[in-house]
Amino acid sequence: MTGNRSATAWAPASLSNLGPGFDALGAAIDGLGDTVRAEETPGETITVSFDPEGAWVGPVDPKSNTAAVAAGHVAASLGYGGGLHLIIRKGLAAGTGLGSSAASSVAAAVATEQLLGGALSQEDMMAAVVAGEAATSGQAHADNVLPSLLGGFVLMRSIHPADHVRMEGWDDLGLIIVLPKAEVMTREARKALPDMVPLSRAVDHAARLAMLANALQRRDVRSLGRWMMSDDIVIPARHHLWPYLDEVTDAALESGAAGCTISGSGPAIVACYDRTKAGLRESLQAALSAALRSAGLEGGVSIHRIHNHGALILDDERAVSWRNGDPVPLPNR
Amino acid sequence: MTGNRSATAWAPASLSNLGPGFDALGAAIDGLGDTVRAEETPGETITVSFDPEGAWVGPVDPKSNTAAVAAGHVAASLGYGGGLHLIIRKGLAAGTGLGSSAASSVAAAVATEQLLGGALSQEDMMAAVVAGEAATSGQAHADNVLPSLLGGFVLMRSIHPADHVRMEGWDDLGLIIVLPKAEVMTREARKALPDMVPLSRAVDHAARLAMLANALQRRDVRSLGRWMMSDDIVIPARHHLWPYLDEVTDAALESGAAGCTISGSGPAIVACYDRTKAGLRESLQAALSAALRSAGLEGGVSIHRIHNHGALILDDERAVSWRNGDPVPLPNR
Repeated sequence: MTGNRSATAWAPASLSNLGPGFDALGAAIDGLGDTVRAEETPGETITVSFDPEGAWVGPVDPKSNTAAVAAGHVAASLGYGGGLHLIIRKGLAAGTGLGSSAASSVAAAVATEQLLGGALSQEDMMAAVVAGEAATSGQAHADNVLPSLLGGFVLMRSIHPADHVRMEGWDDLGLIIVLPKAEVMTREARKALPDMVPLSRAVDHAARLAMLANALQRRDVRSLGRWMMSDDIVIPARHHLWPYLDEVTDAALESGAAGCTISGSGPAIVACYDRTKAGLRESLQAALSAALRSAGLEGGVSIHRIHNHGALILDDERAVSWRNGDPVPLPNR
Repeated sequence: MTGNRSATAWAPASLSNLGPGFDALGAAIDGLGDTVRAEETPGETITVSFDPEGAWVGPVDPKSNTAAVAAGHVAASLGYGGGLHLIIRKGLAAGTGLGSSAASSVAAAVATEQLLGGALSQEDMMAAVVAGEAATSGQAHADNVLPSLLGGFVLMRSIHPADHVRMEGWDDLGLIIVLPKAEVMTREARKALPDMVPLSRAVDHAARLAMLANALQRRDVRSLGRWMMSDDIVIPARHHLWPYLDEVTDAALESGAAGCTISGSGPAIVACYDRTKAGLRESLQAALSAALRSAGLEGGVSIHRIHNHGALILDDERAVSWRNGDPVPLPNR
């Protein structure tokens, strides 16, 4: 800690897209996220540094740094014209498909609001974190920032973030994330998509997403798994970007997963399973690790659940949810 | 009654499309539907007649009559090669946008199954009623037949009827149907649609339908009304077919309806409202009747609820739900 006034926040990583949920569905995950400490500084500029002990170190230009842009929006909304320094401790690397930049954007916005003693409306906070995300991705999509801010699953019209509904994760729902050491360029992934689709496929796509949303509302793991694998537009168009997807998916399904698909534009893959089935987690973890090796890739396989609390305001000994002020166990940073 | 063995069934009219629910969402409504009596006859043919006291009389060619085609499918599935005569008593005219042919298809299929003492699987029954519907519309869409068969709201991949989820209507949800004396040709309505849509609009369409499905699952009348009005693809493309829609919609919203949109491809319009609000039904009914007159149209305004029981097997004094065998009050035929 320095002598300056400071505040610290943590925001979870997130899944997005999930098959027919492309640009419309995201979900916060536990155990993985970014921490940002915001400090008041003399002057009027926002500066950024990365904690070298974090999982990743990125560019610090405040014009393009997602955390700096989000913090700047919060400061401006609160009428603060002074200086800020942000120290970002990344829990995950960029380019994973797990909402890394969104986690930094959200943690920076929440830490800055807390530091400045403000209370932004949810709408103003959403605008700030979407602006932060857009600084990196070039697109004002909310499908990672909203889940990271609010927790749970968030169904939304992505570029109209005020139109969203939040659904909680539930006890039975387990997640396994396979993160291969492979690079997927978001720009390439966008380019692979068709500009136009037949109306009949658009209608079918809509029905599949509605089925997926219904499965979430009913808390039906099997149905969630089925419908998250049902996309017929985005996943087929991008399939060549993920030469390992089929092998990992086959291994997941053969070992009892309810479903398996790409998160974001990859390379991360997420499988969902029923946590109440004894031994399933262990057999899935072994099968997915073997599939990754068999595909000739390094990488990791990790176990998660949905993080229902969203962004957390931290002090030395406790954490509270930004969304509702509830006390929450300190995250594993 | 004749001396021949017979069985009788009733199936409700239905809403379909409902904005972003185009080809994906339908709902059975109470108080309006068709009754079909199926009689065993000598010989091997299926014949059809219409009860002249019904609301409409249609063509009786068994190759294109929706009831005859559905009954034929059921008979074939049960291995029955004998003759059948179907007497159709229409509760609503064709061409209203309220699932008239679907109601005949479903009532005929259920009456025939009952007559022949069979028990088709739900999947076989769906195939029969979809075939009946296709005989009239030329398209194997399930968005009216499934709600008519099963009751409640049904979200589905319309041309894959096995992929559906059923949601019940709830006490707070009131419906007002405005049925102008106006003709909309289904073929014209199909032709007005674009063949292709931009991916971004397909994604947005999917999000809107998912929001609508979520509102149904949460039983949120206000949200249902909002999202059923949110379609940005089908309704704008067909808007010219319904020159009275805007005036009726404005009247409905100004008088406190939660939402208002076309059912099917019209001309019927459905508004939804909160039944718990005292006096709302009366003011809506007056406002919508006035709007219809002001638009220079004859027609009717009627009050409904969602019919949760679906198709009913009738005898002289009682009715039971086809779906679950529950006893149900006799429908108003």
